[in-house]
Amino acid sequence: MAKELTNREENYAQWYNDLVTKADLAESSAVRGCMIIKPYGYAIWERMQSILDKMFKDTGHENAYFPLFIPKSFFSREAKHVEGFAKECAVVTHYRLKNDPEGGGIVVDEDARLEEELIVRPTSETIIWSSYKNWIQSYRDLPILINQWANIVRWEMRTRLFLRTTEFLWQEGHTAHATKKEAQEETLRMLDVYVDFVENYMALPCIKGDKTETERFAGAENTYTFESMMQDGKALQSGTSHFLGQNFAKAFDVTFTSKEGKEEYVWATSWGVTTRLIGALVMAHSDNNGLIIPPRIAPIHVVIVPIYKKVEEFEKISILAGEIKQKLESKGLAVKYDDRDTHKPGWKFAEYELKGVPVRLAIGPRDLENNTVELARRDTLEKMVIPVNEIQEYIPQLLEDIQQNIFKKALDFREKNTYYIDDWNEFRDILSTKGGFIMAHWDGTSETELKIKEETKATIRCIPFDTKPEKGKCIYSGKPSERRVLFAIAY
Amino acid sequence: MAKELTNREENYAQWYNDLVTKADLAESSAVRGCMIIKPYGYAIWERMQSILDKMFKDTGHENAYFPLFIPKSFFSREAKHVEGFAKECAVVTHYRLKNDPEGGGIVVDEDARLEEELIVRPTSETIIWSSYKNWIQSYRDLPILINQWANIVRWEMRTRLFLRTTEFLWQEGHTAHATKKEAQEETLRMLDVYVDFVENYMALPCIKGDKTETERFAGAENTYTFESMMQDGKALQSGTSHFLGQNFAKAFDVTFTSKEGKEEYVWATSWGVTTRLIGALVMAHSDNNGLIIPPRIAPIHVVIVPIYKKVEEFEKISILAGEIKQKLESKGLAVKYDDRDTHKPGWKFAEYELKGVPVRLAIGPRDLENNTVELARRDTLEKMVIPVNEIQEYIPQLLEDIQQNIFKKALDFREKNTYYIDDWNEFRDILSTKGGFIMAHWDGTSETELKIKEETKATIRCIPFDTKPEKGKCIYSGKPSERRVLFAIAY
Repeated sequence: MAKELTNREENYAQWYNDLVTKADLAESSAVRGCMIIKPYGYAIWERMQSILDKMFKDTGHENAYFPLFIPKSFFSREAKHVEGFAKECAVVTHYRLKNDPEGGGIVVDEDARLEEELIVRPTSETIIWSSYKNWIQSYRDLPILINQWANIVRWEMRTRLFLRTTEFLWQEGHTAHATKKEAQEETLRMLDVYVDFVENYMALPCIKGDKTETERFAGAENTYTFESMMQDGKALQSGTSHFLGQNFAKAFDVTFTSKEGKEEYVWATSWGVTTRLIGALVMAHSDNNGLIIPPRIAPIHVVIVPIYKKVEEFEKISILAGEIKQKLESKGLAVKYDDRDTHKPGWKFAEYELKGVPVRLAIGPRDLENNTVELARRDTLEKMVIPVNEIQEYIPQLLEDIQQNIFKKALDFREKNTYYIDDWNEFRDILSTKGGFIMAHWDGTSETELKIKEETKATIRCIPFDTKPEKGKCIYSGKPSERRVLFAIAY
Repeated sequence: MAKELTNREENYAQWYNDLVTKADLAESSAVRGCMIIKPYGYAIWERMQSILDKMFKDTGHENAYFPLFIPKSFFSREAKHVEGFAKECAVVTHYRLKNDPEGGGIVVDEDARLEEELIVRPTSETIIWSSYKNWIQSYRDLPILINQWANIVRWEMRTRLFLRTTEFLWQEGHTAHATKKEAQEETLRMLDVYVDFVENYMALPCIKGDKTETERFAGAENTYTFESMMQDGKALQSGTSHFLGQNFAKAFDVTFTSKEGKEEYVWATSWGVTTRLIGALVMAHSDNNGLIIPPRIAPIHVVIVPIYKKVEEFEKISILAGEIKQKLESKGLAVKYDDRDTHKPGWKFAEYELKGVPVRLAIGPRDLENNTVELARRDTLEKMVIPVNEIQEYIPQLLEDIQQNIFKKALDFREKNTYYIDDWNEFRDILSTKGGFIMAHWDGTSETELKIKEETKATIRCIPFDTKPEKGKCIYSGKPSERRVLFAIAY
């Protein structure tokens, strides 16, 4: 195999980075912290976009587009928001370059300094709510249910492809409502849309819950999250949905006249997922041979590789491959026939394992004789020989099985690595040795939360929705607690 | 009608601006020169994107994503490119804000100055070719056929919604080839893809041709364009396709080993269309009642408006409307039933005329009795009564007729306003009075071209592909000329 990966068990971080670059998903660019999303990685993002976009539209949302730049002063309007977002960001100060009068190439033209600096959006609440002010007068103008697909810049110091980059792609929903209840329902509805997508398409089990105050979005009254376990036992937050209360309406003075004729502030939500989802996909399922992509999100479902020595064989195989391709495409599958003569079958096998194509078919002279193909499934690496006339029925069903199997594997892994712990030493030991999710009691204070983080690097990922009230003592302070929360070291 | 438009014949520019804002396509934002694309405008862009994206993929292209920021020094590598693009642009100089120690809100942190300034991309040739350098070693790595959907920033002094904005959305194709011939073919192939789209979906006739040297893309060896006539007789360039020769390969040192084992520079093309297409759509077809959107690009094909006094009537109409909607949707049409009780039928009629929905159906009590609907087509404003059981067959055909009719109207208008002129005074008179396209002889020099521009504001829009060689004298200098070129005042 030409492209060797670092062993996952030896160096998980390096394995991840190797995989992302060698499977042609993304690479670092000449611009610090900014990545290039290569065609294969972008094809996965396009699959994610098209599925999510349909889900958003089915729940009544429309797309729109707001400016990339945000006037600096907008950030100061919402007190917590400015603390969270206006610091590490790209600042546009000038709008012109000129030839260096001293011959040193091109330089910034100091005469073209902006009166007010512009920030490249780190999130768009402020620019959007400054617009909503003009759009909303009456309850008849509500709700506004808008989503935006866009690029975002946050000046991160430590970056990793897909997981944390200075520029990334995302969608951000920004909705405006007449009542608190409606906004809260919307926040939870979109959380459910996300979890539906991540569990049923990305085959990645999620734990839904509330963020603690410390982990909340800057400017939100409540942040809901969904957390998944990666194969090194760490948690990854794939997206969040925020109930913003009336904070942004107050900051930008957005009021409406209610049915009863009263002037009231508008209620808001925002919610987003990013190209980080691709990082989650890679980290959750892949192995030492490469990516494992769940069929429902895979850009290619089936690859066909011909095995031959003579031209006549190749020609016959190509005819059969063409027929199989057409039959599978009629079932809605994406099929690639790799008939390149520049690479050997063994190289191609390794390449498509690396790229995580769910099903590989190989056709050789003996298959022609027997009217069979050799099938290999990527998730289990199992091989079998099947008759050509069964392919059309078998493969769609197999892809469903693969989808379920990948989900089940991830769920089993999470369950195996989730611990209910009541002893502080044990808590520390687990985190410093094997890692995983820990369900433990917490006294509800930010102080304790921060101390636990200092001592173990673990944070409260969420207060899960579905844990039952259970009296206990805080794992750290020993103070009384009403329920367990989810601790883990996170990406 | 609640939202009045300026009369098109009285003030074309104001009519355009009224239409764009009142039909909810876009509006100006708090950021100078940057627009907000509102949901209805963005829905048109999504239609354009999905059709074009399929065309690109059908011609073998894949999507990818490159960084928003470009290091300043990259622009200096290609001499002409830096002149054309590195001047009026947004410059990122800092990466952090901080609280003003003197209490004046947040200010730029001077300690966080970038070593090298970053330019917000005005086009991506430089950042992409700096990446291609790492992707290309051998002829086996070629061609690279990549497209990117992205936002772009050019610091325009005078902006107009869609036509010229500081930030706009676009796609940019960037391809790399082993031979000059292949790159030239690609340039023309993508020009044809654009013209196919603009003529057959946007219903807007195009004149294809070469740009003159003065109008060429900065860094291109040849720029192909397609020009359309707006209803004020001006020309609008909707997109361009560039043959870049080996200029960017040389600037970024991108070579490959040919089949014959020789080290050669790679050949390049780039091509793009922008949200300006929406401006063209509005300007080319619309009237004093509002937008006229060709069916193949319309976000909504048919709107149904109920007309009733009693609740029982409304209920019966709603059942019929639901049936009609379902039938038309089964034919692949987008249908909206506007059953809001907050607005009167007359208001709705005006609203959907303003928004250019191709077909409107109204259903009243008498229609229920007769099993008919009243149909109004937006392009001609004609009304007719048709039996319910004919709708499913009639409307898809009608939409085709509307599509053809809009194209034909635009073509007739262009032909009526295109002049073959050999006299300089007549040339000037036409441009200063009625406007339009002028086919005239030109001596082939940039000097003459610029003088004509100074005196008349008209530029050479293109040297059309399909004019026959015809000996004549330059309209301005009287020097010999081999063929006529297209002059017009342009947006």
